[in-house]
Amino acid sequence: MRRIAVMDDFLTSEHKERIGETAARLGFLVDYFPRAEEVLPVLDDYEIFFGHHAEEVTRRGRNLKWFACSYAGIDPYLSDGAWANPNCLFTNAAGAYGVAISEHVIMVLLMLLRQMPEVQRRMRRRDWRRVEHIRSVHGLRLTILGTGDVGTHVARLARSMGAFVTGVRRDVGKPADPAFDRICAIRQLEELLPDTDALVLCLPETLETEGILNRARIELLPDDGVVVNVGRGSAVDQEALVDALRGGRLGGAALDVATPEPLPPEHPLWQTPRLILTPHCAGDMALAYTCDRVVDMFLENLERYAAGAPLRYTPNRRRGY
Amino acid sequence: MRRIAVMDDFLTSEHKERIGETAARLGFLVDYFPRAEEVLPVLDDYEIFFGHHAEEVTRRGRNLKWFACSYAGIDPYLSDGAWANPNCLFTNAAGAYGVAISEHVIMVLLMLLRQMPEVQRRMRRRDWRRVEHIRSVHGLRLTILGTGDVGTHVARLARSMGAFVTGVRRDVGKPADPAFDRICAIRQLEELLPDTDALVLCLPETLETEGILNRARIELLPDDGVVVNVGRGSAVDQEALVDALRGGRLGGAALDVATPEPLPPEHPLWQTPRLILTPHCAGDMALAYTCDRVVDMFLENLERYAAGAPLRYTPNRRRGY
Repeated sequence: MRRIAVMDDFLTSEHKERIGETAARLGFLVDYFPRAEEVLPVLDDYEIFFGHHAEEVTRRGRNLKWFACSYAGIDPYLSDGAWANPNCLFTNAAGAYGVAISEHVIMVLLMLLRQMPEVQRRMRRRDWRRVEHIRSVHGLRLTILGTGDVGTHVARLARSMGAFVTGVRRDVGKPADPAFDRICAIRQLEELLPDTDALVLCLPETLETEGILNRARIELLPDDGVVVNVGRGSAVDQEALVDALRGGRLGGAALDVATPEPLPPEHPLWQTPRLILTPHCAGDMALAYTCDRVVDMFLENLERYAAGAPLRYTPNRRRGY
Repeated sequence: MRRIAVMDDFLTSEHKERIGETAARLGFLVDYFPRAEEVLPVLDDYEIFFGHHAEEVTRRGRNLKWFACSYAGIDPYLSDGAWANPNCLFTNAAGAYGVAISEHVIMVLLMLLRQMPEVQRRMRRRDWRRVEHIRSVHGLRLTILGTGDVGTHVARLARSMGAFVTGVRRDVGKPADPAFDRICAIRQLEELLPDTDALVLCLPETLETEGILNRARIELLPDDGVVVNVGRGSAVDQEALVDALRGGRLGGAALDVATPEPLPPEHPLWQTPRLILTPHCAGDMALAYTCDRVVDMFLENLERYAAGAPLRYTPNRRRGY
């Protein structure tokens, strides 16, 4: 019998029922594992692995024919020697996280524009004084680095709230999603930053995105500009960001991702003013909608796999997303 | 010369320029005052007062012909004896606050659904652990009490994020704004509450709205239901809300308004779990867009006033909004 190993730490009993039914119909047997490590001793019994945190699974899985990653980020699987079977099929779940992450972005963007770090500081001291100056998404000049599923979802929400949205990406040749008011190329970033009220980074971790928000670019942002990062911590020069915020520059920043994660207790980011930190939870699988989509995408591909059809949701390993 | 007294604590120099030009063209002289109290000694010189916190102005202004209130809430001007001149015209600025308040509502709604009070508590302790269960506006069953300018703006944003939005109002006969999926009457509230994931109160203070969210109705909400109040503090039985939150009921609450304001240091609301307090700043004039709209509405009416035409934005004093 052909076997599938499935991580069930994010699955409901309904999800399992659906996976079980489809698998049985297509001639597969499913076993569930709470963590990726637990499949390692019996890894060679499985043709398919559906889950995450699976670096050891791909590195050791010689018989593995398809790794269906339940996360969107694929940076752990890009290094030399990441795959025991170089012909292993690889799909991810980019597309499942747009709703969750875009809602997080809108939340922290509003928190920064409305000075919630300061409001909440006063509230903790039982000090009922308003802050002087708040801003609105309505009329905001928003620049989004990365125009994939997450960036597009953010653009859609921000535009429906009245923002003017510029998407920045490597390849401006591709047709632009109407969620964006305009699309610019990475090489135009220096021109865009002085007119950017809010900069949102929704980038995968690749060689090109590492340190993309460097010290010089942070300095180009307006004095009350705000920065939100929901991609990967490596995209931001954290030291330069801390310096700017401590020096009274920038309206604020919100980081859902950091280097390293978890952030060690002595890290300067913990004590930086006007900074909203969250523990990489923007696209968390705690959101039912996300898990539903991840399962939908897997089952759609399982049908294709069984039929010998090409899989969907296949990232480009060389490009990194 | 006919004179206008204008409060300038929320005006930019551009606003003043626009007011000055229009007034001069229409034959009025404008004087500016930082606070309403400062106009009192010379009140009888003025035909028009444009500003807020003006209870003493209307109570003493025998020569006052028009009070243009720059706020939306008119509850201070409803009592017996609130007006020295019973024929004084009265306009308010309902319609100027929808953008500011609806963005606040979306912010706190997301903060409650994503358990930000708990996330932020952990962050303050440098504890990088995620919370278990977050929820989305996408698919949320949202009930909005009050379908005026603010309620309609909230509905529009929440719907564009994928919520199912029910508006609740006194008069269901009026045509419904397409921002709402459906409109229900106040008397249906008991039926609606058990199926309400999030309840948003955008009500003026009137005899009918006082205590509208009472203990019995709070108990009808689902165990993880959330409550947001941006209208007037008097709409909520605060003791019952504190009891519910302390007793582990409700997913959380966000109050931008409270009774009394400012909240005294010993008040139990300060120490209530899963409660996001803000100091009546949702519709704050700190937002440039709001002030622009308030000035636009005043100048539109000044043209009408000078031409002897009926004014717009006139609340119903008997109804209370």
